[in-house]
Amino acid sequence: MSSNIKLGIVGFGNLGKGAAKAIKATSDLDLVAVFTRREPESLNINEPGVQAVHIDHAEDYQSAIDVMLLCGGSATDLPEQTPHFASMFNTVNSYDTHAKIPEFYQTVNDAAANHQTTAIISVGWDPGLFSINRVMADAILPEGKSYSFWGEGLSQGHSDAVRRVNGVKNGVQYTIPSEEAIEQVRSGANPELSKSDKHRRVCYVVAEENADKAAIEQEIKTMPNYFADYHTDVHFISDEELERDHAKAPHGGFIIKSGQTGSTNQQLYEFSLALDSNPEFTASVLVAYARAAFRLSQEKQFGAKTVYDVAPSYISPLSGEALRRDYL
Amino acid sequence: MSSNIKLGIVGFGNLGKGAAKAIKATSDLDLVAVFTRREPESLNINEPGVQAVHIDHAEDYQSAIDVMLLCGGSATDLPEQTPHFASMFNTVNSYDTHAKIPEFYQTVNDAAANHQTTAIISVGWDPGLFSINRVMADAILPEGKSYSFWGEGLSQGHSDAVRRVNGVKNGVQYTIPSEEAIEQVRSGANPELSKSDKHRRVCYVVAEENADKAAIEQEIKTMPNYFADYHTDVHFISDEELERDHAKAPHGGFIIKSGQTGSTNQQLYEFSLALDSNPEFTASVLVAYARAAFRLSQEKQFGAKTVYDVAPSYISPLSGEALRRDYL
Ligand SMILES: NC(=O)c1ccc[n+]([C@@H]2O[C@H](COP(=O)([O-])OP(=O)(O)OC[C@H]3O[C@@H](n4cnc5c(N)ncnc54)[C@H](OP(=O)(O)O)[C@@H]3O)[C@@H](O)[C@H]2O)c1
Ligand SMILES: NC(=O)c1ccc[n+]([C@@H]2O[C@H](COP(=O)([O-])OP(=O)(O)OC[C@H]3O[C@@H](n4cnc5c(N)ncnc54)[C@H](OP(=O)(O)O)[C@@H]3O)[C@@H](O)[C@H]2O)c1
Repeated sequence: MSSNIKLGIVGFGNLGKGAAKAIKATSDLDLVAVFTRREPESLNINEPGVQAVHIDHAEDYQSAIDVMLLCGGSATDLPEQTPHFASMFNTVNSYDTHAKIPEFYQTVNDAAANHQTTAIISVGWDPGLFSINRVMADAILPEGKSYSFWGEGLSQGHSDAVRRVNGVKNGVQYTIPSEEAIEQVRSGANPELSKSDKHRRVCYVVAEENADKAAIEQEIKTMPNYFADYHTDVHFISDEELERDHAKAPHGGFIIKSGQTGSTNQQLYEFSLALDSNPEFTASVLVAYARAAFRLSQEKQFGAKTVYDVAPSYISPLSGEALRRDYL
Repeated sequence: MSSNIKLGIVGFGNLGKGAAKAIKATSDLDLVAVFTRREPESLNINEPGVQAVHIDHAEDYQSAIDVMLLCGGSATDLPEQTPHFASMFNTVNSYDTHAKIPEFYQTVNDAAANHQTTAIISVGWDPGLFSINRVMADAILPEGKSYSFWGEGLSQGHSDAVRRVNGVKNGVQYTIPSEEAIEQVRSGANPELSKSDKHRRVCYVVAEENADKAAIEQEIKTMPNYFADYHTDVHFISDEELERDHAKAPHGGFIIKSGQTGSTNQQLYEFSLALDSNPEFTASVLVAYARAAFRLSQEKQFGAKTVYDVAPSYISPLSGEALRRDYL
């Protein structure tokens, strides 16, 4: 039997599919099974040796699986599935409703601590790698603050909002960071930037036949919370163009901190991602943190953890000795 | 009495001076004393309440100091001073002789483990933050490898080599990363790059009066190990120009990883620093990791550690609760 860490995936959407691919790219992790609320036979897993199982039978896998990757949606799946699975398995999830994280942490911590499992929450790129860089930049350069820019990338929530507009057949929305704002931050000016100073929005919309395009454009641009406060462009395209040019889910962004040391020296710290596929990258981060969940649980560090609680060596397949020799 | 973490500095060169400034910029850390091999009175500390003390009296400060920042040079100071101080104090150092790190780690680990202190070694930006990003990028994107580029920046070792050339009165050397190589890596080509593909070198030299400039240029450009394998430019300048334009110690660089996920998606991970002052930034990193040395020692995690063993929350002044609420 291989000494690899045994993983399960809960939920086979974009993230779940990305996780299956990411596990395949490693040599120290094995995928045992995918759990779903749908008919297991309906999943197209295509991996020899990997079972598709109904989520209700997950508890039978407690001894076969070391870490469960929770790949459900943040809105309704994870708040329910995370405490449930944390009572049986070590888990990793990518919960990204920023405002509700403290409350989510408490619930998951209670479940995990009570059942002696390790649950790493809110793993991915934001929350996740971006969060780490915000904290490290501010810890090292206390003066000023770190700035987060997102994009150029497809935003799921805003695309959904566009698609709900009357007369819209289909559509996507891209968030685009302002080059000017980025340059201001890099210059060390530590500017006050509103949300709309930092980003603009571009929508590609397929209208229903005979729909009033001017009305659609007006409704999108004035939509509160989503678009009203931003500079927004709306372009009308065809079904074919949407499929040809907008089928991927690219995303990314920048964490930038320009801090002063001494009295005159400007120090620029920058972290950035440019992702062809947001869910595949996020899943790759989840998979790397599965190593950490396994190792922390071996050390009996139970309860909820975040990326802030995980040392870099815990996500690497390499030994401390190899890391010091080849990477330091 | 304040509950701040109490720090000492050993060695008052560029890094030591930078550390004193960095501590002043925090509100949770206090500088107690600076230790030197020179006449303590000769140091110009200029901080009320901070003592200048001869290094031989450091042992009297064991109860007054929580963490000692070792700011000596890597060539001869740190190999001797680190085990010595690790037998009395928690320590942080910036040892950067990459090839000798495994051996250095062993020696320091023995001293620290025997005397129940925590010693974080090789902290700074490279080794340090760059090392963390190499490991994280390769853990998350196993395909391909991460590339390190240094500069544009002043390299101390190469500047010393230039100044040793016959007929050279003074001079500096800048390491400049190749834009072309950086673009190749960003494109996802995962190219094979030799050292000289990645960087070129530019020297600014003040020649002695009547020196043979052609001979100086020739000697620099053909110097083995340092310049012979690189494209090198040599510019002759005046004393005044050297002082006016080359008195700072800027540095920085990039860690770039372009990895594929699935079969078609390119994912670009990038970390970069652009530093006006290499020693002040390095010292700021050391100071942040002093928090980690203190906290790890409180948890009785003794022995030698590297940045790979330190979770991000340990270097932040903020509580786990505040980090989850405001940064995740
Ligand atoms: N932290 C970060 O950086 C980051 C980045 C990106 C995304 N995320 C988070 O990741 C979450 C998941 O994203 P996602 O793109 O994977 O969402 P998704 O594709 O909508 O999948 C969510 C769930 O929906 C179900 N599902 C998927 N396809 C279905 C279908 N054809 N029919 C019926 N049900 C289906 C799956 O559960 P069943 O298999 O049980 O049906 C799946 O677990 C997001 O909510 C977001 O919060 C985080
Ligand atoms: N990890 C990284 O990213 C990174 C980056 C940059 C540098 N570093 C490391 O940091 C080390 C220290 O760099 P540094 O720029 O601080 O070196 P430095 O200025 O040469 O100081 C080294 C030591 O020399 C002594 N010294 C300084 N000024 C002196 C003077 N005027 N007369 C006599 N002695 C003097 C000091 O000890 P006393 O006070 O005891 O005399 C000091 O501790 C380097 O060797 C390098 O390895 C690491």
